[in-house]
Amino acid sequence: MTNFNVLLFDEFETLDAFGPAGIIGKMQNTYNLEYYSIDGGTVLSSQHVSVNTRSVLDIDRNIRSILLIPGGMGTRKLIDDNVFISKLNELSQNSEFVLTVCTGSVLLAKTGLLQGLAATSNKRAFNWVCSNAPDVDWIKNARWVNDGKYYTSSGVTAGMDMTVGFICDIHGDKIALDVCDCVEYIWCRDKNNDPFAVQ
Amino acid sequence: MTNFNVLLFDEFETLDAFGPAGIIGKMQNTYNLEYYSIDGGTVLSSQHVSVNTRSVLDIDRNIRSILLIPGGMGTRKLIDDNVFISKLNELSQNSEFVLTVCTGSVLLAKTGLLQGLAATSNKRAFNWVCSNAPDVDWIKNARWVNDGKYYTSSGVTAGMDMTVGFICDIHGDKIALDVCDCVEYIWCRDKNNDPFAVQ
Repeated sequence: MTNFNVLLFDEFETLDAFGPAGIIGKMQNTYNLEYYSIDGGTVLSSQHVSVNTRSVLDIDRNIRSILLIPGGMGTRKLIDDNVFISKLNELSQNSEFVLTVCTGSVLLAKTGLLQGLAATSNKRAFNWVCSNAPDVDWIKNARWVNDGKYYTSSGVTAGMDMTVGFICDIHGDKIALDVCDCVEYIWCRDKNNDPFAVQ
Repeated sequence: MTNFNVLLFDEFETLDAFGPAGIIGKMQNTYNLEYYSIDGGTVLSSQHVSVNTRSVLDIDRNIRSILLIPGGMGTRKLIDDNVFISKLNELSQNSEFVLTVCTGSVLLAKTGLLQGLAATSNKRAFNWVCSNAPDVDWIKNARWVNDGKYYTSSGVTAGMDMTVGFICDIHGDKIALDVCDCVEYIWCRDKNNDPFAVQ
């Protein structure tokens, strides 16, 4: 069993977190979903969802884990929060894979771990993203990007396509399509098909 | 402002609720998102999300409202819970529109309000759905169905397509496509296009 740890913070974008979680949740024999925040306690999404979380200090380092970092308006403050970024760096290094959605990729970039690697983010905030992390090879025309152990996706619902893509890479086509069938998801399986990049 | 009330219960399917919420949340000048359960308090989704909710008794009847009913394993018990179904009937009657996702449509059907109306539900549980509410005109081949003030969708992620369809019906094409752009959602806009019905 691998832990799939979702890192939440105030003003996270609801679907950035729960889109991927809703998909990974269909592999309950492989992944155990847990929701964390830096200090634990209640976290409020931009869509008013109040979620109870555990502190990241409770993460068991002896269990293999994957980290999911959503985006959202909360990232605007967090990119300048050295304590948050330092803890995120440690969490990311201790995770087998790190998946980010939307502006969650900027938080990851701020740790330095994306330096020189290819990544993407959402298209409405793309200039902000690039200017805040110029050392990353930002790919504009991509639904999602995989480089090493890092998976980064475009805005919000692109995170679901990335998550199915991740499942496909790790577990193969059949399992990925079974998961899509479970949640009746019409998967955009071409990671280079980004209808929102040209706007 | 219209309230968009999401009704949660233990073992709700995470994406059934937060898919539509993530989309409606982009119309924050039109819809105010709130999360309720029958008794209020903490509700746990099937994907381990612990959500703080208000009691449905707190719903202000003087404000126009829309009700969203997710599905999930929790519906298996609730269809036989007369107190729940009776409260759901009242809530539905007091709502301008009622949207259901997946097996949430069976909960709504149990109130009697879908009698003789067209509706759909998810395809993996379709026989269970039909046998538990034989007085509904269940449409198998549909991503979502609208009949009167009721919108019902197929499984899980079909709820997002339905929600954009609802926005399109009420607010028009441009706003619906703007919302898709905001969340970078590749909308399946043909409600009769159901790739999961034939399986």
